[in-house]
Amino acid sequence: MSEAMIPADLPLRNDLIGEVPYGAPQLDVPVCLNVNENPYPPDHAVVRSIVEHVKQVAPTLNRYPDREHIELREAFVRYLKEESGAQLTVEQVWGANGSNEIMLQLFQAFGGPGRAALGCDPAYSMYPEYARDTFTSWYTTHRKPDFTLDVDHTIDDIDAIQPAMVVLTSPNNPTGTELPMTDLKRILEHCQSAQVAGAHDGVHPIVVVDEAYIEFRNPGTPSATTLINDYDNLAVSRTMSKAFAFAGARVGYLAASEGIVDCLRIVRMPYHLSAVTQAVALAAFDHRKEQLSQVDHLREIREQTAAWLKEQTYKGQPLEVAPSQSNFLLFGGHFDDRGAIFDQMLQRGVLIRVVGPEGWLRVCMGTDEEMRRFREALVESMRAVENA
Amino acid sequence: MSEAMIPADLPLRNDLIGEVPYGAPQLDVPVCLNVNENPYPPDHAVVRSIVEHVKQVAPTLNRYPDREHIELREAFVRYLKEESGAQLTVEQVWGANGSNEIMLQLFQAFGGPGRAALGCDPAYSMYPEYARDTFTSWYTTHRKPDFTLDVDHTIDDIDAIQPAMVVLTSPNNPTGTELPMTDLKRILEHCQSAQVAGAHDGVHPIVVVDEAYIEFRNPGTPSATTLINDYDNLAVSRTMSKAFAFAGARVGYLAASEGIVDCLRIVRMPYHLSAVTQAVALAAFDHRKEQLSQVDHLREIREQTAAWLKEQTYKGQPLEVAPSQSNFLLFGGHFDDRGAIFDQMLQRGVLIRVVGPEGWLRVCMGTDEEMRRFREALVESMRAVENA
Repeated sequence: MSEAMIPADLPLRNDLIGEVPYGAPQLDVPVCLNVNENPYPPDHAVVRSIVEHVKQVAPTLNRYPDREHIELREAFVRYLKEESGAQLTVEQVWGANGSNEIMLQLFQAFGGPGRAALGCDPAYSMYPEYARDTFTSWYTTHRKPDFTLDVDHTIDDIDAIQPAMVVLTSPNNPTGTELPMTDLKRILEHCQSAQVAGAHDGVHPIVVVDEAYIEFRNPGTPSATTLINDYDNLAVSRTMSKAFAFAGARVGYLAASEGIVDCLRIVRMPYHLSAVTQAVALAAFDHRKEQLSQVDHLREIREQTAAWLKEQTYKGQPLEVAPSQSNFLLFGGHFDDRGAIFDQMLQRGVLIRVVGPEGWLRVCMGTDEEMRRFREALVESMRAVENA
Repeated sequence: MSEAMIPADLPLRNDLIGEVPYGAPQLDVPVCLNVNENPYPPDHAVVRSIVEHVKQVAPTLNRYPDREHIELREAFVRYLKEESGAQLTVEQVWGANGSNEIMLQLFQAFGGPGRAALGCDPAYSMYPEYARDTFTSWYTTHRKPDFTLDVDHTIDDIDAIQPAMVVLTSPNNPTGTELPMTDLKRILEHCQSAQVAGAHDGVHPIVVVDEAYIEFRNPGTPSATTLINDYDNLAVSRTMSKAFAFAGARVGYLAASEGIVDCLRIVRMPYHLSAVTQAVALAAFDHRKEQLSQVDHLREIREQTAAWLKEQTYKGQPLEVAPSQSNFLLFGGHFDDRGAIFDQMLQRGVLIRVVGPEGWLRVCMGTDEEMRRFREALVESMRAVENA
C-alpha cells in the first residue's frame, strides 16, 4: 500500500492533515528484527490446542461473544499469579485486541480535551498517537542520560502539568530500562494527592505501567502487578505479543483496581473481543510453558549480543549498549548517520529499527542464526558507512 | 458483572461520570431474540474450513499479522461484487473488529471537538456513543411518522449544522426501513457542496451508510456500495455479524473511496485485525453460500411474523408493524408500558429488546420454534399486562 494522499475535500480532522499511518515498514526481508517479536513459532502441541479450541467455538459463531470475556479474564488472573505472584480477581483484569487497544481505552476513559498525559522520553512511539487520537495533551519528562527514570523531575512535572495519567514503561521501549519498584512507589504515592487539570477537586492522576516486555526481565525483578492491591491508582498493561509469542493473535490485557477496569468498560466497544480471540488466547494460556519456553534463551542471547556489541567500534569508538531487561537492545549512541547504517543492514537482508534518540538503533533478539546474520551485517554495514 | 460504581478519586472524563457500559443484557434465556443475530449456526463444512484456516495460521502467530489485511480485503471485493454488483478495488475496502470499530474509526478520522455528525432518529443506539467517545457533537433529524427518511429536513439540517459526517442506515435499525437510492443520491449530491463547521474551505461532508442488515433486503433492492465509484464522499459500513451468521468473529468492513479508506489508515491501531480473525473471515467467505443459506427463510419468517403481528391486538387496537427489510421487526406502536410487556416476555423465557420510540418493541427473527414461542409468549404477555 502506498502512503496516504488524502483528497483536500474530505473532512479529515484538521490536526491529522499531513499525518501518515503509524507502523514499521512491512518489508519482505530474510531477517526481521524490527518489531520485537518472539522468533520462535508455537510448537505442535500449542497449534493442536489452538485448533481444538477453535473447533469448539466455531459452531457458535453466529452468536455474539461473551462481552465480559470472563473465562479469559480468569486465565489472566491465573497467569499473573504464576508469573509475578500478583493476587488479583476477575474484576481487576481486562482484555483487548492487543495492548494498543488497552492503552487506547485508558486514554479514551481518562484523557480527552483539556486533559493531559505525561510520559518519559524516550518511550514507546505509539503513546503520542493514543494521545492524538483522544485529543489528550501529551507531555514528556526526559529520562536521565542512562535512560533511567528521573523521578524528581517526573514528580515536578506531575505538579506542573497536572496530568490525568502518568505513563511509565518497564522495561522501557526502546531502551530496555527497568523501572525500580521504589521509583514507581514514589510516583504512585505522589499521585495519590496530586491535582488533575480539568477535573473536579479530589480527583487524582492514575499511573499506567506498560509491562509489554516484562517476562524478559532478569529473574527476581518484581512486576508492578504485585502493587495493585496497594494502589487503587495503578494500572498495568500487558500483552501476549512479545514473550508469549502470540503477536498475530492480538491479545493485550490490563491489571488494575476494579474502579479503573469499570472505567474501561464504559468506553470499550460492545463485543470488542471476538469469541475466536478468546478461544485461541485460552489455548495459549493452557500451553504457557511451551509458549514461554524460549524466554530464558532469548535473555541469554540478549546478554551475549550486548557483550558482543560493546566490543564493536564505529569510527574508532566502542558502541554503547543500553542495559536491557527486554528482548531488544538499543545500541550505538554515536551513529552520526543511523539511517545509512539501517539502509546498509537492509541491503544485507537484516531489518532493524530506526527508533529512540539520535545516534541509536534498536535490534530485537532473533534465533541464533538470525543473530549471526545480524552481527555479520552490522560489521559490514558500519565499515561501509565509515568508508562512504 | 455488576454495573460500574466508579470511585470519585479516579480521573474518569467529566462527561462520562454517571455513564454505564453500553450493551443489551446478557441473560441466560431459552429464546434470545434481542441482538439481531442469525439463529442458524455455521454448518459442519464451514466449521471444518474455519478449523483448517486456523491450522494454517497458528504456527505463524508469533509474528504480527498483515497490517493491511490484503487477502481479506480481496475477499470483501469479491463478495461485494457478487452480493451487490459493486465493482471495487482493494484500496476501496477496509476491515475491522466489527462494524463498531469501522464506525469508531470513521468518527476518529472525521469527528472530534468542534466537529458535528448528523443522524436520523430513530437509528442504531451506538451512534451517539461513537460521537461521545470521539468528542463529536451528535445531532439527529427526525424521521417521518412511517420511519422513512425526511430528505428535505435532513438537507436543511445539513446546511444548519454543517456536519462532517451524515450517518444514514439502510435498512435502518431498529425500524427496518429501507433508504431508497434516489433519497441517498439527493443527500450525496447536496453534501458535495455543503460546508463543514470547523473545517477549511472546500471541505465537504461525507455520507456514511450503515448497511449492517443489507443482505435481508427484498430481492432487487440496490446497495449503496454500487454508488461508490460515482461519489467520493460515500462510505458504506457492513458487517459479517448479521446475515452472515458470524457475530462471534467480529468482522466489519467498509466500502468507500480510496481517500476515505486512507483516512481510516491514519487513525487505526497498528495490527488492529488479528491473523486469526483474518483467517476465519476468509474461511467464512469461502463458504458464503452456506453462511447465507438461511437468509431467504428468515425473510419469509419476517413476512409471516409481520402479518401475524398485525392480526394481534393490544387494548383493543391492532398492533402496528414497521415495514422491514431486515431480520427484525419493530412492532406495537401503542404499548403504553412496553417495559411491562418486555418483563412478561422475559418471565416466559423470551428475550426481546426495548428500543426505538416509546410504545414500540423490537424482535429479531429466530428459528421456527423460537418464533412459535415468541408468538405464544407475546399473546400471554399482552393479556397479562392488559389485566394487570
